[in-house]
Amino acid sequence: MANLVIVRHGESQANRDNIFTGWTDVPLTDKGIQQGVAVGKELEQLGIQFSDVNTSYMSRAIKTADIILEEIDQLYIPVHKTWRLNERHYGALSGRNKDEVKAEVGAEQLHRWRRGYTEFPPELKERQHDRRYDRLGIKMPLSESLEMTQERLLPFWEDQVAPRLLDGKDQLIVAHGSSLRALIKYLDNISDDEIDKVEVPNGKPIWYQFDEHLNVIKKTFITMDGE
Amino acid sequence: MANLVIVRHGESQANRDNIFTGWTDVPLTDKGIQQGVAVGKELEQLGIQFSDVNTSYMSRAIKTADIILEEIDQLYIPVHKTWRLNERHYGALSGRNKDEVKAEVGAEQLHRWRRGYTEFPPELKERQHDRRYDRLGIKMPLSESLEMTQERLLPFWEDQVAPRLLDGKDQLIVAHGSSLRALIKYLDNISDDEIDKVEVPNGKPIWYQFDEHLNVIKKTFITMDGE
Repeated sequence: MANLVIVRHGESQANRDNIFTGWTDVPLTDKGIQQGVAVGKELEQLGIQFSDVNTSYMSRAIKTADIILEEIDQLYIPVHKTWRLNERHYGALSGRNKDEVKAEVGAEQLHRWRRGYTEFPPELKERQHDRRYDRLGIKMPLSESLEMTQERLLPFWEDQVAPRLLDGKDQLIVAHGSSLRALIKYLDNISDDEIDKVEVPNGKPIWYQFDEHLNVIKKTFITMDGE
Repeated sequence: MANLVIVRHGESQANRDNIFTGWTDVPLTDKGIQQGVAVGKELEQLGIQFSDVNTSYMSRAIKTADIILEEIDQLYIPVHKTWRLNERHYGALSGRNKDEVKAEVGAEQLHRWRRGYTEFPPELKERQHDRRYDRLGIKMPLSESLEMTQERLLPFWEDQVAPRLLDGKDQLIVAHGSSLRALIKYLDNISDDEIDKVEVPNGKPIWYQFDEHLNVIKKTFITMDGE
């Protein structure tokens, strides 16, 4: 039996400003930092000794992971950073205000882009470059659907997270709204049509307990003190 | 050619309180956090794009590394944490006030314990246990000389840091007063008798530049703005 806790990073500046972010690197707000501390305090009460933390290449997730590790006094454990846990790439919507886009394309189209499984936002006209991906030989996407996000995320799950859980090693994943929705869809076996109802708020951990065959035996939404 | 920057963690509570620490895990003070930020600002001016950060199993070093990475906007690079970069184990002196020990044993004996190469502080009567080492099958030392510290540090240098430098990958090491003295003794080829003159202050980076055979071609003490 092993434990997995998944948590979305604390509030970022783009979350606060209602802006599509995707692979753009934005910092946490003060509120986001405090959410990280609060998550740490809740996880401390669970008493799980994590073997590893898995996070993305984005500062908002890595910083949230660091804050949690400090709070639970487990800074010494390995932190595995991977682009495969990055937020879904929001294509040409990256950096745009969500209300402005809604006014342009309508609520229905926006909902399909945001919450659907196969639809993806308009592609960027030019591929972006960033040292953090260039050094790995990774081409940055022009846009991603949730399905594409899941496709590039699952090899990391299968190669790294799942084997460690099967070894009984408790895992923490700190990632993003859409990359965690893609993972939840897989873990909970949610249909393509139903995934649009799943949301992952900032800083609200979900605790999975697995049996020795990696079947989910319990899923707990961890609520914060005072909620 | 490759760059190596080594830096001792920011001021810890034990540094502030004049207490021997060794493998005891103590947090940074506010001053220590600010020293980390200042180091980051200095390194940003150097403009080095590090490939890796190497640090110990101790929170004060890991946290300093995290602060520096955030400041230089390189949070995404791998952080390699190893007990081999831990501070020298201070044996039965761990947790004791340095002035009190000096009053008991005299300044000369204290200096030999603190700055000598082969002498080690009185051993602990019982071996300590800590999950972070137990899980690796590492026995915690009863006490360590600088020589013993160097012996357990060098395999990490030889297996991990040196090959990456030979590959042209710039490296950052965030560690401790004595573990860095052990490394400096090796890199600068300092004799056993002369090493007692070397001190590494908190948060003052040293920048080594190597040629393609890993010979040191330049060593620079990075001073902070306003010093």
